[in-house]
Amino acid sequence: MLTIGVDIGGTKVAAGVVDPDGRILDRVKYPTPANDPRGLADVVAKAVEELRGHHGEVRAVGVGVAGFVDEDRATVQVAVNLGLREEPLKERIQERVGLPVVIENDANAAAWAEARFGAGRGSDHIVCVTLGTGIGGGLVMGGRLHRGRHGVAAEVGHYRVVPHGRRCACGNHGCWEQYASGRALVAAGQDLARTDPTAAGRMLRLAGGVVEHIEGHVITEAAVEGDEGALSCFRTIGEWAGVGLADLAAILDPECFVMGGGVSDAGEFILEPIRDSYARHVSGRPGRRLAEVRLAELGGEAGIVGAGDLARH
Amino acid sequence: MLTIGVDIGGTKVAAGVVDPDGRILDRVKYPTPANDPRGLADVVAKAVEELRGHHGEVRAVGVGVAGFVDEDRATVQVAVNLGLREEPLKERIQERVGLPVVIENDANAAAWAEARFGAGRGSDHIVCVTLGTGIGGGLVMGGRLHRGRHGVAAEVGHYRVVPHGRRCACGNHGCWEQYASGRALVAAGQDLARTDPTAAGRMLRLAGGVVEHIEGHVITEAAVEGDEGALSCFRTIGEWAGVGLADLAAILDPECFVMGGGVSDAGEFILEPIRDSYARHVSGRPGRRLAEVRLAELGGEAGIVGAGDLARH
Amino acid sequence: MLTIGVDIGGTKVAAGVVDPDGRILDRVKYPTPANDPRGLADVVAKAVEELRGHHGEVRAVGVGVAGFVDEDRATVQVAVNLGLREEPLKERIQERVGLPVVIENDANAAAWAEARFGAGRGSDHIVCVTLGTGIGGGLVMGGRLHRGRHGVAAEVGHYRVVPHGRRCACGNHGCWEQYASGRALVAAGQDLARTDPTAAGRMLRLAGGVVEHIEGHVITEAAVEGDEGALSCFRTIGEWAGVGLADLAAILDPECFVMGGGVSDAGEFILEPIRDSYARHVSGRPGRRLAEVRLAELGGEAGIVGAGDLARH
Amino acid sequence: MLTIGVDIGGTKVAAGVVDPDGRILDRVKYPTPANDPRGLADVVAKAVEELRGHHGEVRAVGVGVAGFVDEDRATVQVAVNLGLREEPLKERIQERVGLPVVIENDANAAAWAEARFGAGRGSDHIVCVTLGTGIGGGLVMGGRLHRGRHGVAAEVGHYRVVPHGRRCACGNHGCWEQYASGRALVAAGQDLARTDPTAAGRMLRLAGGVVEHIEGHVITEAAVEGDEGALSCFRTIGEWAGVGLADLAAILDPECFVMGGGVSDAGEFILEPIRDSYARHVSGRPGRRLAEVRLAELGGEAGIVGAGDLARH
Repeated sequence: MLTIGVDIGGTKVAAGVVDPDGRILDRVKYPTPANDPRGLADVVAKAVEELRGHHGEVRAVGVGVAGFVDEDRATVQVAVNLGLREEPLKERIQERVGLPVVIENDANAAAWAEARFGAGRGSDHIVCVTLGTGIGGGLVMGGRLHRGRHGVAAEVGHYRVVPHGRRCACGNHGCWEQYASGRALVAAGQDLARTDPTAAGRMLRLAGGVVEHIEGHVITEAAVEGDEGALSCFRTIGEWAGVGLADLAAILDPECFVMGGGVSDAGEFILEPIRDSYARHVSGRPGRRLAEVRLAELGGEAGIVGAGDLARH
Repeated sequence: MLTIGVDIGGTKVAAGVVDPDGRILDRVKYPTPANDPRGLADVVAKAVEELRGHHGEVRAVGVGVAGFVDEDRATVQVAVNLGLREEPLKERIQERVGLPVVIENDANAAAWAEARFGAGRGSDHIVCVTLGTGIGGGLVMGGRLHRGRHGVAAEVGHYRVVPHGRRCACGNHGCWEQYASGRALVAAGQDLARTDPTAAGRMLRLAGGVVEHIEGHVITEAAVEGDEGALSCFRTIGEWAGVGLADLAAILDPECFVMGGGVSDAGEFILEPIRDSYARHVSGRPGRRLAEVRLAELGGEAGIVGAGDLARH
Repeated sequence: MLTIGVDIGGTKVAAGVVDPDGRILDRVKYPTPANDPRGLADVVAKAVEELRGHHGEVRAVGVGVAGFVDEDRATVQVAVNLGLREEPLKERIQERVGLPVVIENDANAAAWAEARFGAGRGSDHIVCVTLGTGIGGGLVMGGRLHRGRHGVAAEVGHYRVVPHGRRCACGNHGCWEQYASGRALVAAGQDLARTDPTAAGRMLRLAGGVVEHIEGHVITEAAVEGDEGALSCFRTIGEWAGVGLADLAAILDPECFVMGGGVSDAGEFILEPIRDSYARHVSGRPGRRLAEVRLAELGGEAGIVGAGDLARH
Repeated sequence: MLTIGVDIGGTKVAAGVVDPDGRILDRVKYPTPANDPRGLADVVAKAVEELRGHHGEVRAVGVGVAGFVDEDRATVQVAVNLGLREEPLKERIQERVGLPVVIENDANAAAWAEARFGAGRGSDHIVCVTLGTGIGGGLVMGGRLHRGRHGVAAEVGHYRVVPHGRRCACGNHGCWEQYASGRALVAAGQDLARTDPTAAGRMLRLAGGVVEHIEGHVITEAAVEGDEGALSCFRTIGEWAGVGLADLAAILDPECFVMGGGVSDAGEFILEPIRDSYARHVSGRPGRRLAEVRLAELGGEAGIVGAGDLARH
């Protein structure tokens, strides 16, 4: 049995035919219509029909979307970047394509894909953490996706790591994503350049001398060259990421953590300080069996694979 | 079908016949043998046989124990207060009573009971938090008990709320239970008495003038009388408890929190500040549907009921 | 003997003839020339000559400037808002007016005025704290202005109150001025309006419904009306201000704190929570004699008076 | 002109004849009488008379005592370890020896000695920090000892570095001395031994395998051998010590910090991490002229020298 997985992002709608082993057999991609719920459903329907033309045995459609999805996996309660509010996306798509449709938060879909076919395969208890601009997450526990009562579980980026800490766009202070996300990495690099230009010399040169141009890829590039200033930025962010994993381990006791998102592209430069910090901060030492910390394997396609596979179950 | 639930505590072994509605039909109680694994199995077997004599239709035994239980729910990895290490408790009891046996952490068993028959009944996503001397917890998610990969999930008392915070017996600093447990309540009362004896006047009088005698029941008694000093202690602890619930909500999105343990005996004196703090700290305001914060209903018998019911499933 | 005090601000140069009792006998005011060190000295000279025309017995000139002044009180090392760097301001003015000139940091000058003629008169040990956009300060200890080795003492706004706290423009995190300044007050009001529009209702109405228009005077106006939301903002800032006074008391043991700056215009709305927080946080309770916390008395003229009086000594 | 300096400690009264260059020409030592104010004055008088027998030109007596001394430098308000409360020590000694007497806090006396004759000579703005069991301090500003309004300035160990931090014996939480004192160093070593016995292996061996026997000298000995676990303890404490110096620099702008107390015996092992942390945390980087961080030079005799010299002025 085949399904179609759709990943609705801020700029493009990517869809693919997914087989039971998590492979994508065929792909299409369209621009995301801005602030146009019906137009969005039209685009999804077009992508589905196009793929179905070549794969008649498709039986269901799964859709991942960057927003809060209700407990019936039918309505998008709010998706800020897409301009959706209380949008009956399942119904709209279903009436267009005549197949069963399931809607899911995109981070949840990606986490499910990693758990089934990626870095987490073989484990029943997985915490996926996406270190992107902010921090997102997905929980697979007892082999099932944990969505929470209202579909908003795994908002791990907004648990608090510092009382009275840095202001977060969510209105709170000290959220984890202010300390361990890609934005935090960039802030660390730019702070260093402002207060110690010598230590940040290599990054500054790669950024053309402009502090504001020190972005994630600049820091990674300098780190790859062995630059101590850039490595110190990764250590700072990794330290906080590890603190968060330790807290999540105390609460959830997973078998492994799967780390995705742009920051994870730095590979061992970020994984090593994360593992080191996690091992120092987790409770129950010595003696506790440590969860593994792995890199996500499916990259940008995890959303399609996960959405497709969730439609199957 | 009936089962027997056993709650092994540090001083007594309490057992009861549990029916499918979570009622206890019959009870026995024995002292806990100290540092004697075989003697402990003997006592459990004796309790089971005694109850079985009156209730022949018992089909299984569930045992709750204050310690880490492995993923097969058979071996107690470590139970400090009982002197157990890598103890094959399931096997020992099974060979004595000839019934299927399941071993479970006692906080998990109690959480299960509250979820099925107590304050959490009707909900599929429940976080139980026990504010006792320390802080324990239990997670029921998607209608199932979440034990984690190694059986040590829900150690919520040891997630960190303050970087560089108060020293915890676990070896870390800033653990939640240093701020929101019964011990933290007592510390708050005694700190007040040392630094502002006037404000703590009522508590001091109830404690016979001795700072060290300001214990939980003293603070509760003063609070019931409306004493401002005692109420301020509950507000301090409730503030921290609410911070923790907010973090747990960000990660787990439960439908309700069930608050148990000795601190919860203070009822609204502690619940009100917890709810207030939780509502101020949770992410996603305004708009987020708040999980309810309820008092546990089953009291000291939750362990028996939960263990018995888990044996049924 | 009379002197002239000059207060060089970002938009105007204010000067006055100061008598030995700290009274201003005569005043003039000119616009501040932008990024023009020589033009600035010309303006100061013009103001001095004008005042001297009516008061021939003037014997010295004191100049307060918002910047770092070297230990010889002659050179402005850096004054960001005035575009000065290593500027020999004393020499430039002296050669124009032919009188002894002394240069001083403006917050120091104002602190000196408060200590001698304002809220601190009669005390030898005074800490002035200016809660403006940021936080500045001035120390008078043993009856003398404490300038520090390099003239940059009393930068109290940049001592750290929260590890890993809010990012400060100075490059550090968790500086006091991120928690207790006017900017922090405004942030508290706007945060409340975003996360709890009901609680911030009165402030929002006064701000025409626009969160970004909730500024200091709006919060003060609402507080004067007794609005609970606005009062809670003052309590938040006052709590942090009091923490800082407690730390300063541990280090300096002053006889009184003199609170100035725009936030202080709120009077008891801010003083009461400051005093309350200070008394709870100061070390050495019970038994410690608490320093008084008073409002500054000289307002915007403190700079002229202080600069003039410093020229006399 | 010669004076006599007396250092009243918990176990011994040490006195010496001090010349104008801060040299001790002669010494005597007696046990401290316990809880006996008159007996204490007798012992001081005996020591003074004995020294005077050989040095007839002695003209005044200075007495350093571990307690709060009033602003007249006459009365010991409270000295817990000596059992003194509102003790007119100046009068008692004066009537016995017939010489002018001045009483001073012992940390202040030691700071004065370092400022005049030790690591701080030649500087007018000095902050002395004593990293002993707790943290004490002394301020010399503008060439004068800063005692504060009530004689309790420089209680730097009790300014707060961590909100909601570790409980301090003073009744507050998060005091500096909970993080950077000798007691904090020992706690760091023992914490490491409990949570990571391998990393603490060398310290544990030196302590005979008993965690509680890991004391300051054990950690220093292991550090001298290059043991990474012990060095990490010094880095932890040095990091916090440097944070405190950065805060003190923002407030006081000293020319140098003089570090004394038992922890300072570790020399560069502790100084290097302190300097490193101080340079990273101080405000005003880049560009700020950093105060020097030096080791105290006078050791245990600073109290005698300082008390003697203060009697001269």
